[in-house]
Amino acid sequence: MSREIKLGLLGSGTVGSGVVQVLRENIQEITAKVGAKLSIKTVLVRDAGKKRPQLENLQVTENFQDILDDAEISIVVELMGGLHPAREYMLQAMEHGKSVVTANKDVVAQFGREMFEMAEKHGVDFLFEASVGGGIPIITPLKQCLTANRMTEVMGIVNGTTNYMLTRMSESGADYASVLKEAQEKGYAEANPSADVDGLDAARKAAILATLAFNTHIDLKDVYVEGITGITTEDIEYARELGYVVKLLAIGKDSQEKGVDVRVHPVFLPKSHPLASVNGVYNAIFVRGNAIGEAMFYGPGAGSLPTASSVVADIIEVARDILSDTFGRIHFNDTNQKKVCPIEETESSYYVRLLVDDKPGVLGAIATTFGNADVSLQSVIQTKQSIPGYAEIVAITHRVRHANILQAETKFKALPVVNEIRNIIRVENE
Amino acid sequence: MSREIKLGLLGSGTVGSGVVQVLRENIQEITAKVGAKLSIKTVLVRDAGKKRPQLENLQVTENFQDILDDAEISIVVELMGGLHPAREYMLQAMEHGKSVVTANKDVVAQFGREMFEMAEKHGVDFLFEASVGGGIPIITPLKQCLTANRMTEVMGIVNGTTNYMLTRMSESGADYASVLKEAQEKGYAEANPSADVDGLDAARKAAILATLAFNTHIDLKDVYVEGITGITTEDIEYARELGYVVKLLAIGKDSQEKGVDVRVHPVFLPKSHPLASVNGVYNAIFVRGNAIGEAMFYGPGAGSLPTASSVVADIIEVARDILSDTFGRIHFNDTNQKKVCPIEETESSYYVRLLVDDKPGVLGAIATTFGNADVSLQSVIQTKQSIPGYAEIVAITHRVRHANILQAETKFKALPVVNEIRNIIRVENE
Repeated sequence: MSREIKLGLLGSGTVGSGVVQVLRENIQEITAKVGAKLSIKTVLVRDAGKKRPQLENLQVTENFQDILDDAEISIVVELMGGLHPAREYMLQAMEHGKSVVTANKDVVAQFGREMFEMAEKHGVDFLFEASVGGGIPIITPLKQCLTANRMTEVMGIVNGTTNYMLTRMSESGADYASVLKEAQEKGYAEANPSADVDGLDAARKAAILATLAFNTHIDLKDVYVEGITGITTEDIEYARELGYVVKLLAIGKDSQEKGVDVRVHPVFLPKSHPLASVNGVYNAIFVRGNAIGEAMFYGPGAGSLPTASSVVADIIEVARDILSDTFGRIHFNDTNQKKVCPIEETESSYYVRLLVDDKPGVLGAIATTFGNADVSLQSVIQTKQSIPGYAEIVAITHRVRHANILQAETKFKALPVVNEIRNIIRVENE
Repeated sequence: MSREIKLGLLGSGTVGSGVVQVLRENIQEITAKVGAKLSIKTVLVRDAGKKRPQLENLQVTENFQDILDDAEISIVVELMGGLHPAREYMLQAMEHGKSVVTANKDVVAQFGREMFEMAEKHGVDFLFEASVGGGIPIITPLKQCLTANRMTEVMGIVNGTTNYMLTRMSESGADYASVLKEAQEKGYAEANPSADVDGLDAARKAAILATLAFNTHIDLKDVYVEGITGITTEDIEYARELGYVVKLLAIGKDSQEKGVDVRVHPVFLPKSHPLASVNGVYNAIFVRGNAIGEAMFYGPGAGSLPTASSVVADIIEVARDILSDTFGRIHFNDTNQKKVCPIEETESSYYVRLLVDDKPGVLGAIATTFGNADVSLQSVIQTKQSIPGYAEIVAITHRVRHANILQAETKFKALPVVNEIRNIIRVENE
């Protein structure tokens, strides 16, 4: 029990404070589990003069070099966020023989391969459990517990802000604008909500999940992204009537013929699907593999302490590697480069909602147009609108190529009886 | 890629065949992930003369010594089940410097500590992900991903047979006897269903989960057990009316004052609880810790390929340890001995259903009796029965000590207006 492993912490924001708190509160149990004491030696902060009650008794510095040059520090914990200088600091730490633990989804999504290679080159660990799903163990399960499988699907609710908003729209019937305002008031959404509502945050997590699940490198630019800004209360109401809920999902699929496709978009999900009852700010990741079948991981997707739970678990993992003199243990490699399936070639069922003229023959014209684009229909509903002369047509298609839906969309735009294409949303039917 | 790691397999039943199949089908991906080839060298079988198409091209033996003495075999995979000789074989394998992977909940629940100590002494791995929850990653998450937490609760649906039966009773209104027959016809329940329906299988898993979650040694005899044989369609109907579902849960709680209590029994679970929608033969484990808050792990709790998914993941984990020359890596230790809370001291809300005389003053007598046993009530319903002269009283209590419920039960037995104590079931209200 005499051995001590010292950490350098980069950043002292929400997650950093959580890490300090978890290490303080649970130090006795953690020491017993690890067989060594973990202690934070130095914290990199922006302004060393600022009072930080949460960092009491800890040494702070404004200069990363102090941590880099400190031979006593064997683990660097990066919690600054953002691409730069986080990426550079982590690379330098590994070059100096220090292992790195991070919660930084941006760096892992965009520079993951560079990080893995640097870790391998220097025989150190690079761990990033907290980068997806906050406190939920999902990175380790994918790298380790499910690694005997050929994974075919990973599908997750990985953005708490949008899940909260969609849950509220569904529960209360409120519209997009008012649930966004509510989420902002509760601190779940930023003043500029774009990263969440446009799906960019989820896209980073989708790239990481797909990279791990399919053991291939998925570049962020290969992720197709649609956000939730176009979802209306009417769409949510139709979903309910048809037996679905609307969720923003990060989806990765590996069909051996077409390759890997990775995307983030709203989905009509059957109410019976395990992800359908994941509500509010909770996250969950559903996976499918050729040995396990289906499994799901559920928990808090963000927050100071849940995220710290994952960060500290990674720190403990590195400590165990250090204590057992492990060198260059393979945690993950993505050397297997699978082809990426273009979005046009992906297949799905679709919900298509059109505002049309309310006159005889319209339904026939719509059905014919779908048929001409090679889109076959599973069901069609036509409903009167409050404005006389208009009706709404809601169609659920069979499974078709995205290219065919784009083709149908183009044809509808040219069709005089179609006044507006109100929404097109994918339906997950498996 | 030249290195090869050789396995000895003990047993070639359902799980053994699954392991052979997963290693065959996914060998290319697995080899790429591990950086070495995993191959089964020898399989221990009961009758070497018997034809086994699933073991084609594999060497079989009836003599464990052949595997034990084979220096080329570095990992022994125990899938025979049962306590003996599985325990002895595993101990011997570790004494011979071989790592052990097992799916054997009986041995882990009853001889876990002996196994951990032997592994530590010889610097080998002892891994057992498949012993609880089949394909669901739960052992590794508890040992590793959630290890930064002080865990306060672990609660699981860990027996697929009973969950299938309770789900069917709830869906179809069928009674216990007919769903048992249905489960037996489908191969979900054994001809002698005792291990499942009496909660013994779940008890073993409860002991393992609690040992890992609370980092202490829980002996199987410390687990309090009630099965589902007393659950009637009426109980399930009352549960539904009151907003609950009936589940058989394995529960471990660590309240720092009272100690750790571990039990298996039916529970009224609020419909909104994440475990409430886990139906059929699926399993799920819900955990609560002081950093993560709540999380849940869901998937197939049994079956050849799902269980093999966990076994092969453990094999890969050992292979990674071997390849990185890891010696004596701490995976888990349970040296921390916490006190066990006696069942009488545990606290819960309770559902109490009584058949009483249908006459004025009975409800008052019942309420007074509860009060005399220091049991306060949350709600009481009185319903007429089809037999004239009888009524049923269904009470939900506030949170009380189990000792007080036992006291109330004794008093009801002596009360002339109470004709029958029809059921007493715990209610999870958190």
